[in-house]
Amino acid sequence: MTAYEIIRKKRNSHALSSEEIAWFVNGCVSGEIPDYQITALLMAICLNSMNDDETAALTAAMAQSGETLCPSKELGGFCVDKHSTGGVGDKTTLIAVPICAACGVYVPKMSGRGLGHTGGTIDKLESIPGLSTNLSHEKFMNIVRSTGFAVASQSENLAPADKILYALRNATATVDSIPLICSSIMSKKLATGADGIVLDVKVGDGAFMKTPAEAQALADLMVNTANHAGRKCKAIISDMNKPLGKCVGNALEVTEAAEALSGNGCRKDLYDISCTLAAQMLFIAGKGSYEDCMTQAQNAFHSGKAFEALEKTVALQGGNVEALHDFAVMGKPEQSAYVRAGRSGRIMAIACERTGLTAMELGAGRKTKNSAIDPTAGVVFLTDVGDYVSEGEKIAALYSSANCDIEGIVKNAAEIFKIEG
Amino acid sequence: MTAYEIIRKKRNSHALSSEEIAWFVNGCVSGEIPDYQITALLMAICLNSMNDDETAALTAAMAQSGETLCPSKELGGFCVDKHSTGGVGDKTTLIAVPICAACGVYVPKMSGRGLGHTGGTIDKLESIPGLSTNLSHEKFMNIVRSTGFAVASQSENLAPADKILYALRNATATVDSIPLICSSIMSKKLATGADGIVLDVKVGDGAFMKTPAEAQALADLMVNTANHAGRKCKAIISDMNKPLGKCVGNALEVTEAAEALSGNGCRKDLYDISCTLAAQMLFIAGKGSYEDCMTQAQNAFHSGKAFEALEKTVALQGGNVEALHDFAVMGKPEQSAYVRAGRSGRIMAIACERTGLTAMELGAGRKTKNSAIDPTAGVVFLTDVGDYVSEGEKIAALYSSANCDIEGIVKNAAEIFKIEG
Repeated sequence: MTAYEIIRKKRNSHALSSEEIAWFVNGCVSGEIPDYQITALLMAICLNSMNDDETAALTAAMAQSGETLCPSKELGGFCVDKHSTGGVGDKTTLIAVPICAACGVYVPKMSGRGLGHTGGTIDKLESIPGLSTNLSHEKFMNIVRSTGFAVASQSENLAPADKILYALRNATATVDSIPLICSSIMSKKLATGADGIVLDVKVGDGAFMKTPAEAQALADLMVNTANHAGRKCKAIISDMNKPLGKCVGNALEVTEAAEALSGNGCRKDLYDISCTLAAQMLFIAGKGSYEDCMTQAQNAFHSGKAFEALEKTVALQGGNVEALHDFAVMGKPEQSAYVRAGRSGRIMAIACERTGLTAMELGAGRKTKNSAIDPTAGVVFLTDVGDYVSEGEKIAALYSSANCDIEGIVKNAAEIFKIEG
Repeated sequence: MTAYEIIRKKRNSHALSSEEIAWFVNGCVSGEIPDYQITALLMAICLNSMNDDETAALTAAMAQSGETLCPSKELGGFCVDKHSTGGVGDKTTLIAVPICAACGVYVPKMSGRGLGHTGGTIDKLESIPGLSTNLSHEKFMNIVRSTGFAVASQSENLAPADKILYALRNATATVDSIPLICSSIMSKKLATGADGIVLDVKVGDGAFMKTPAEAQALADLMVNTANHAGRKCKAIISDMNKPLGKCVGNALEVTEAAEALSGNGCRKDLYDISCTLAAQMLFIAGKGSYEDCMTQAQNAFHSGKAFEALEKTVALQGGNVEALHDFAVMGKPEQSAYVRAGRSGRIMAIACERTGLTAMELGAGRKTKNSAIDPTAGVVFLTDVGDYVSEGEKIAALYSSANCDIEGIVKNAAEIFKIEG
């Protein structure tokens, strides 16, 4: 086998065998295959695509390129994982995962940090003073055993092939390929070893997948890939044409999730999708019919059981639980400003990607991998799509402790809203 | 401008501007663009192609990446160049170029070495003891001025972008792209600065272009590219389904060319194509109508004037002219063996690529860039397509001074011939 022959085969639109794919992935990780051959293959995959079997083989080889976990063996119970393809204001993990834990399903969750205009669960949780996501394996498992869930940052040795391939894709305009996106996401999910995986594929202006057809194709491919590896899997496709819930930003999203779970109100879009995800997670864990699972999820939400699970895990991960009650514990922003309605009328749309970029400018997101994050920064919507507003009315609040021109950001942020009428 | 944006544009099948192409080529040569971005672009070009303007811009940028010559200014006359896309037994340069010189057209020829199953003019000429192709620019020009032509090996600094791109293409299965083949060939032709270029695009089993349609596409693109750069250009498409002439090998091909030009016989296929190429070269140099040019070429062939030009140039390049009369001066092969007809019948075909590979095994060609060449090695056909032969009759002779299993090679060589009836 040679890298040349494998590249040539894909260049000529032929399917690669599992052996060829595994050999190539191993060569990437060992350093035997030079970067210039890797990127040639990535571009050929990007343009000539891969079939479902090839994608499953690529994902499996990437998953096996580093450490692999088997939490269900250690915990003696079915483990569920959840993944979102990335949205704006998406704090569903902070709600759905505690719900599952409260309903008796283990969720040993490994998460990444955010990049660009979408946030990461790790960044959000780290807004809580003292909370660490850098957990030893033993501690991670102990917390899951005790409360039903824990959230740790991904180990450096989890699917190292993905790190290599992703960095090269990022430099060569080959990110945007459904088989490559699938293998990148699913290799990490397979390596962390959950028995069941629920996927939330976002579609719309604020998501990587801009059309329902693309989102469906990615969803189908990810489910097929998980099944191929012997995992249960279910994907839902959810709208990302407006930000989810009312807050975008790290501490702000923890606040919103804590308010929701502690009975202090939750926007309907956030409630619906969080319960749907939790119900799907319970369903694939065998907790009854989907309808039963939905009832269990809603009960855990409303009864405060899920909030209890969240409090316990936050405490066990070293976090100050007071932050879930008194949000000022997470820090007070140094600057704030209001976006006001430019005219009277009805809010027809709230632009999602632009909201994410605004939050990033305020300091809530990373422009590059090594940027620092301002936990206090972000956007709070005071209105929603469908609301009628008067000219000059406050429609959103912007917060930041970063060194940014908040007045300039406010001006541009007016364009987030489409008001008609 | 960024390499990423240029790759992305080509990945999305958009045409690149001349500025983008020039910027990228300069970045390749300066080392600012890493190999892994270069190969991603090469694969994108391979799969999404380039239009004629892009190819012309790429070729021009590659030509300008190093030294560029302008021989017609130095010599005070129209200069013609000739290029073949590579064949088996193709010694037309050794015949057509002296013909042109004898007819008063300058041919300052820069050539490459052979690789794989096709030979290179430099390797052939270097079979002549003492002959050097490593000429100073001044000496090169002086010989052209004196005899009408000289043959030098390409300067290291001629189109350095091509060396970089070719090595990467060779490692990433991106050789086989018509715009990239065109830019590789034509960048060197443009850099050497001839006013007119005649191209011999080979098609068939022994050529890189396997079908007439591919050959025509490459020919059209190369002519367009040359015209775009202000050069006259004419391409002919010639058959490479059987080896050209009767000899394949370095000294053997010099022998065949010298025999032809000195009136000692020439196979019709070799005569026809050599005169056609010479007539086209004279025609684009403005030496009259094509028919007139053909007459001039044939006269120079038959009168011995072309042979005189060859003798003079060989002498001025330091070669022992005796080699053109007494071929043993070029060395005697240590081993020889005959291929005999496996049955009685008519020779229907002589497999071209297999002949080239047989010659390579005997030592006449390079398996890798740094392989040594045995000048005495090669194949001499004692019969031709269409001949009737008897079982056991000698149909070809194999020669070698290399350490090879000539008996084993003879056995396999029988398959070169298709005998029926």
